[in-house]
Amino acid sequence: MSEAPEATAVQTPAPAAVAGRRGRRAADVGTLVQRAREGDARSVARLISLVEDASPALREVAAALTPHTGHAQVVGLTGSPGVGKSTTTTALVRGLRAEGKRVGVLAVDPSSPFSGGALLGDRVRMQDHAGDSGVYIRSMASRGHLGGLAWATPQALRVLDAAGCDVVLVETVGVGQSELEIASLADTTLVLVAPGMGDGIQAAKAGILEVADVFVVNKADRDGADQTVRDLRYMLSLGGRHSEAGAWRPPICKTVAARDTDNGIDEVLATIGKHRSWLESSGEGQRRRTERAAREIEAIALAAIRGRMGDVHGSAALGALAEAVVAGVSDPFRAADELLAQL
Amino acid sequence: MSEAPEATAVQTPAPAAVAGRRGRRAADVGTLVQRAREGDARSVARLISLVEDASPALREVAAALTPHTGHAQVVGLTGSPGVGKSTTTTALVRGLRAEGKRVGVLAVDPSSPFSGGALLGDRVRMQDHAGDSGVYIRSMASRGHLGGLAWATPQALRVLDAAGCDVVLVETVGVGQSELEIASLADTTLVLVAPGMGDGIQAAKAGILEVADVFVVNKADRDGADQTVRDLRYMLSLGGRHSEAGAWRPPICKTVAARDTDNGIDEVLATIGKHRSWLESSGEGQRRRTERAAREIEAIALAAIRGRMGDVHGSAALGALAEAVVAGVSDPFRAADELLAQL
Repeated sequence: MSEAPEATAVQTPAPAAVAGRRGRRAADVGTLVQRAREGDARSVARLISLVEDASPALREVAAALTPHTGHAQVVGLTGSPGVGKSTTTTALVRGLRAEGKRVGVLAVDPSSPFSGGALLGDRVRMQDHAGDSGVYIRSMASRGHLGGLAWATPQALRVLDAAGCDVVLVETVGVGQSELEIASLADTTLVLVAPGMGDGIQAAKAGILEVADVFVVNKADRDGADQTVRDLRYMLSLGGRHSEAGAWRPPICKTVAARDTDNGIDEVLATIGKHRSWLESSGEGQRRRTERAAREIEAIALAAIRGRMGDVHGSAALGALAEAVVAGVSDPFRAADELLAQL
Repeated sequence: MSEAPEATAVQTPAPAAVAGRRGRRAADVGTLVQRAREGDARSVARLISLVEDASPALREVAAALTPHTGHAQVVGLTGSPGVGKSTTTTALVRGLRAEGKRVGVLAVDPSSPFSGGALLGDRVRMQDHAGDSGVYIRSMASRGHLGGLAWATPQALRVLDAAGCDVVLVETVGVGQSELEIASLADTTLVLVAPGMGDGIQAAKAGILEVADVFVVNKADRDGADQTVRDLRYMLSLGGRHSEAGAWRPPICKTVAARDTDNGIDEVLATIGKHRSWLESSGEGQRRRTERAAREIEAIALAAIRGRMGDVHGSAALGALAEAVVAGVSDPFRAADELLAQL
């Protein structure tokens, strides 16, 4: 033995223990990934917790999972509150299970600080599938997480993908910006509308028309359903990306998804399958996956930079820069240059 | 003449023209700032547009404004929709104008992509003050801006401060996270509640209790107003930062602010004045201004980093990293490390 390892040992105390912890963690992660791939729901849940909480094992988990990903079709469901997202999700799960597919469900609530294994209150009916090992259901909160949806959701999607899910349904609870974020994460985006809710116009306003791959007119037994379909057709006829040659033209499906009826769900499932084929044949699937990975890389890099700024913040450096701005002897842009020079 | 300037001229084409543009812009900005300080509303509006749109002159404008800032008291108004934020803002403007104060109003709509000089629909009554040179009213959209509220609002506040406003009222349209952001920008945060809306509990939930400097129970002629005051008193008695020695204990004012009545507004104005004195005497004002400057510096630095990532994005670098992740030969954390190494 030379003295070099000794010197290293002084710089990083207790190297054996560190190596031991690393070794144990690696074994744990490897075992968890193996078990998750064999269909063990507890291991899937544990892996999601590890990546969602940005635990120290996060990087290791991501590295272990990535080679096993790329199979799942991520299907995002968006639409105004009350349009029937939960019942539609439940009906889609039933249909996919009937086809023997393995299914993941992520219910994302951007307004809630609560997360984890607990089901959302109005999702109790999903417990139909609680004993079914082919379904993983997870509710997640994005508020308070580093970078919100952009950070936590892709991590959980990777776990469900590696665990062998054929389809992962991502449903957002609530409204606004997060709907568009979900669309950016999905291979296939379902936009749900209901008759008489003015959803068509809302959708156009929010930019949802542009991100829709499939329209689902739910509650189609209500008055005005046909008018809603006509409104959507008219809006689609106005152009946008759907009018380009070789483009996917979003089909409009009519459903009546309720507790005991799944009318129209088979057609939605068939359309989702067609969209998957189109994604593969057109190259659009590869393009979306790459775009998604790029966004995720950016989000991780930004979180790392924020962390470093936090360190500067903790030190006196940023405080001194801020005081100079308040005193009027500097301005925030000059100060930002100096901050960046220190990172 | 040596040959070196010639060589430089080749690298940066038309240096004379660049210098000319710079010279002209500098003169423009200087003149605009001078006119704004003299009370010219058009110059104020032009400066806000320059900083809000992140125009090339942005840095120059910030540098020219900063030495003239530090006078205005920034008063944030938050509260649930329907609580009467607009009418209260209008009543406060009337009261401040009656005292001969110069007033700025920023109405921030985080959900709207529209911005600029146009007044929000429900703010037409503010046109009472449209011909009054002592009031600047501006509606801003934060959606779509670099970093949202964190970016655009401090810039506009700086303009109004340098323009000699004694008080700037910042009112947010809508709900959620943006309310807390407004509080972080303000010297004095007014939390508006109304009887019978369960606002007290909402406020506690949203963390608004912790950020309130003054509570305003609006619509105090309604049933339940006294109960609302008692609820707030009880919640304040439970502790938090207000219970520390030397701390400011948020007063609770009752108002009936409507189109033609300003009952209680005088008391609110007096309380705002008292809070200003406390901010100065306690050192809390300086602390908040410094904290605010630190946040702004961070937001600008992050926007700069995002811009650089955008450049990498435009190039093939991020694309190649993303493709490696999709192919399963890298993972997003390793890719983020490589991206950061390239910045």
